[in-house]
Amino acid sequence: MKGKTIIKRYPALLIQGGRTQKVEDWVAVEGSYELYLNDTLVDTIVVSPTDLEAHALGYLVTEGFLKPEEVTGVEQQGDQIFVRTATKKIIPRKAAHQNVIYRRREWGEIPVVSSTLEVSPALIIQCAQQIPEHSESWKKTGGIHCSVLFDQEGRVIKAAEDIGRWNTVDKIVGYALLHRIPLTKKILGCSGRQPEGMVLKAARAQIPIVVTKAAVIDRGIEVAERLGVTLIGFAREDRFTIYAHPERVRVAFSPHLR
Amino acid sequence: MKGKTIIKRYPALLIQGGRTQKVEDWVAVEGSYELYLNDTLVDTIVVSPTDLEAHALGYLVTEGFLKPEEVTGVEQQGDQIFVRTATKKIIPRKAAHQNVIYRRREWGEIPVVSSTLEVSPALIIQCAQQIPEHSESWKKTGGIHCSVLFDQEGRVIKAAEDIGRWNTVDKIVGYALLHRIPLTKKILGCSGRQPEGMVLKAARAQIPIVVTKAAVIDRGIEVAERLGVTLIGFAREDRFTIYAHPERVRVAFSPHLR
Repeated sequence: MKGKTIIKRYPALLIQGGRTQKVEDWVAVEGSYELYLNDTLVDTIVVSPTDLEAHALGYLVTEGFLKPEEVTGVEQQGDQIFVRTATKKIIPRKAAHQNVIYRRREWGEIPVVSSTLEVSPALIIQCAQQIPEHSESWKKTGGIHCSVLFDQEGRVIKAAEDIGRWNTVDKIVGYALLHRIPLTKKILGCSGRQPEGMVLKAARAQIPIVVTKAAVIDRGIEVAERLGVTLIGFAREDRFTIYAHPERVRVAFSPHLR
Repeated sequence: MKGKTIIKRYPALLIQGGRTQKVEDWVAVEGSYELYLNDTLVDTIVVSPTDLEAHALGYLVTEGFLKPEEVTGVEQQGDQIFVRTATKKIIPRKAAHQNVIYRRREWGEIPVVSSTLEVSPALIIQCAQQIPEHSESWKKTGGIHCSVLFDQEGRVIKAAEDIGRWNTVDKIVGYALLHRIPLTKKILGCSGRQPEGMVLKAARAQIPIVVTKAAVIDRGIEVAERLGVTLIGFAREDRFTIYAHPERVRVAFSPHLR
């Protein structure tokens, strides 16, 4: 498991200028590893699978849990990384915080998204074009993510801005819950990447179509496949790429990816 | 504290085409709030200060802690957000995980970065230009962050790629520790934004200059100011902006920002 593969190819549909093309698209790989300090589990880290010993050591030091001089060894064994100190210091599990992105959790119990929503390619492009236009703050700072909830005509229901892309989805879903807006025929537009944790949020909220202007990550595709989310990436200008469940987009092409 | 300000202006130096200009730059604001479920603290969330009740509710639901129908109320009081359910359900503190970015921690004890490093504007531009060139994976997927450690001549010591921008810094610092490379005269180049948590990582590692091609976030500037980190953002083509400790960059201009 000491893999160095941080990208891999996925089958996808590229829709550009009204034409549909089957492609093999490069996607970033999400790995998860258990981080142990003196044989006590500190955290499950989600990380691209390179430089794992360096990551474990750097994480514990730059988050202030260890001083460099305390460390006596770092070693990877399969999906586990062990950091050792002379003093047998421990950090109780989950006392450590996770800056990174997503800790793996069980998601087998999440119901598959059930929706009859079907949209045209033009509608996806229309939604994508409205994502940055709703963020004056983004234009000013370059440091703000935005998610937008669209109805099935591509009209904006709610736009949420945040420094964290995860937060923008929380704000959208929370807004819908507060206003009793059902989500099973809505489209979620995002400015940010879609790893497993982001797509899980949409799945838990029963949102059938997720469109991002940015990239998708490999486990995001896997979750979307399994939980029935139509996952669309790189939605920019007149193009977008469908990575999972293309059957909700009416394209002039056999919609089966696999 | 129910503010709606998610961006604010900071004084900065813009260096472009060899000229230096004092500017007031818009920067995204980082807020932190305590999230309570039935009066038990779940987590400290870091978020742009809008839609906070929606965020709290969306976060608890999309992470799978609550079902929408369990919620009986959501309310913000100052820096605290309270979510209530009929069943008095609780989630023990830190059992919740944090997708977002950074939980505030005490950092008063971190020593100010002490370094005699001084560089030219041309060196900063040279470093910035080398950040994406070291990530073939980024070019292929658009979903990979990259950090690069440079020596004081702008030569690459180590490049680290990851789906998480935090991880790239951990990998760089861990690599330096594993190879006993002192960091007090090095430059850290990043592809990603610099909020408080990212700058804290550099400060803990005693890295004097941080350069990102992306934006800086307000508390990132505050940490850099307090802990002696030269913080440079939007380093692209022939330009960059210095947000804190410009005295390490030799520009033909009074280097005092404030």
